[in-house]
Amino acid sequence: MTSELTMHRLDGTLRASPTVRLGDDVEPGWRDALTAWARSHGLEITDRDATLAITTRPDHANGAAWVHSPYAGIEHLAPALPGDVLLTRTTGTMPERIAEYVLAWVLADRWQTARYLADSATATWDPSDPPVPPDRNGAVVIGTGAMGSAIARALRVVGHRVTGLSRSGRPDDAFDAVLPLARALDPADSERPGHDEARLDAPGTDVVVLALPHTPQTAGVITPELLQTFDGVHLINIGRGSALRTDTLLHALDTGRVRHATLDVTEQEPLDPASLLWRRPDVTITPHISGLTLPSDVVAALEEALTQIRAGVRPTSAAARERGY
Amino acid sequence: MTSELTMHRLDGTLRASPTVRLGDDVEPGWRDALTAWARSHGLEITDRDATLAITTRPDHANGAAWVHSPYAGIEHLAPALPGDVLLTRTTGTMPERIAEYVLAWVLADRWQTARYLADSATATWDPSDPPVPPDRNGAVVIGTGAMGSAIARALRVVGHRVTGLSRSGRPDDAFDAVLPLARALDPADSERPGHDEARLDAPGTDVVVLALPHTPQTAGVITPELLQTFDGVHLINIGRGSALRTDTLLHALDTGRVRHATLDVTEQEPLDPASLLWRRPDVTITPHISGLTLPSDVVAALEEALTQIRAGVRPTSAAARERGY
Repeated sequence: MTSELTMHRLDGTLRASPTVRLGDDVEPGWRDALTAWARSHGLEITDRDATLAITTRPDHANGAAWVHSPYAGIEHLAPALPGDVLLTRTTGTMPERIAEYVLAWVLADRWQTARYLADSATATWDPSDPPVPPDRNGAVVIGTGAMGSAIARALRVVGHRVTGLSRSGRPDDAFDAVLPLARALDPADSERPGHDEARLDAPGTDVVVLALPHTPQTAGVITPELLQTFDGVHLINIGRGSALRTDTLLHALDTGRVRHATLDVTEQEPLDPASLLWRRPDVTITPHISGLTLPSDVVAALEEALTQIRAGVRPTSAAARERGY
Repeated sequence: MTSELTMHRLDGTLRASPTVRLGDDVEPGWRDALTAWARSHGLEITDRDATLAITTRPDHANGAAWVHSPYAGIEHLAPALPGDVLLTRTTGTMPERIAEYVLAWVLADRWQTARYLADSATATWDPSDPPVPPDRNGAVVIGTGAMGSAIARALRVVGHRVTGLSRSGRPDDAFDAVLPLARALDPADSERPGHDEARLDAPGTDVVVLALPHTPQTAGVITPELLQTFDGVHLINIGRGSALRTDTLLHALDTGRVRHATLDVTEQEPLDPASLLWRRPDVTITPHISGLTLPSDVVAALEEALTQIRAGVRPTSAAARERGY
């Protein structure tokens, strides 16, 4: 069945039963904006099963023909929903927000922000060893989706040459180069003749950003061997904590492969107060605040998806269900 | 006398007496690079009076026909040199470096870097009150020279609408608008009919950057009245400390006109350990490290100036002596 027919059928279902359920997980402060949006389209808010469920909880999505995640992550929804349910997600301004977070912490590292904040608090005027331009301008972004692309654009503004690593290695204008992740993960492969043009310049790399969604394929994908190819990089993770095991990171820090880690996501969240990641001067933890979604982002995503459904077009924000994101 | 004749005469003097003096103030680590540059042009290094003096010290510039400042600031040289001496300066990559410093601290403020560094050091996972996009996107840059323009370009990348304030108010593509500083300083003037298009949007301003050189005209130019027009701005000074008196700033902080000040320059440097600016959580001091000059910048500036002199062209880096910068 074509996407057009599927969307027309969904539109018909929405018109026959114009109901919306807001999951218990929808933040209280967002309910007014979402209710107003639903009413503006003649959709009735209900506490029971509905045609459209706005939630991240599969148990609130029973019977829905369309489920919209108010966030970008859909790892709990995707495997739990029947294959014929349309699953859309909120990206909103998140890629640009996350890119700005990455830029903020790349510059905080480059400009020794932690040092000068401490000096300022202790009346210490110390002009020795001031910030100088980095002698390596390479950055690697692992994950080349909307977030990875926005991050690449931001890093290029501050002089980085940005290589993306993705499943396909398909070229993307946001990057100076894109390579298949498998090749970067397999040094033997990259040393095969004929692949010179596609080698990762690990020694010239100063910043490595992880921008991977959580999928079965990405769990633990950042292996000790991959980190071993780098030397003294600033590693930033804004994707999902599962991509990088804590013990793998600690080893890379202790051996100098990673000189500093800035982590907005960790294997467990909230991070256990006993975690070895806390209190290390070479690790900065932020509590999953880089990709904040605003209620206006959710309304805009719903509005766009509904407009596309009514035009018989598969929504741009529809999840690639078979890949898990 | 035309500039061309003047430059030809200077070129002749250089050829007749190809001597260069490096002032005692030239950093020891730079002497090799500068000596190599001089020798590559047949110029002899001497400890006595020379045709070209590379220094910021007027007493090392005696008898020189050309004085090159290894830094951007020339406030001590300009008034001390005879009017017919060519005075050039090193700008180098400084505007871009200073713009990056401003971007780093604007983003540090926006992304609550000080808070999360402290939380990270104390194993505190606190996702409440996360960073959100600023509700005002205006930025004001006072001083629209090379540094002000580079700062404006950087601030536009992170979503600011940037108004420049300059002596002339002459339009500049780096800015969304440029107004004469005198009009912004005189609210009565800005309220005159017919000037609506040229009013400063002070209430919509979130960031104010001071990018002024030190001249007799700029000392104390940031008056209490000017700061009074703003509300809760992040003020950043990367120009010269003399533009903003410490007591004016402290009053603006105490009354909330300025919510945070990031100062790379202060009225006295080094800043007295007893200064009230230290230890305030709403003031960040850095020890004049934003506009670091690299030896390669000095060599590039000298090379460009010499090439222009030999072509009979007034060097791009020549100081506007009559304005004091």
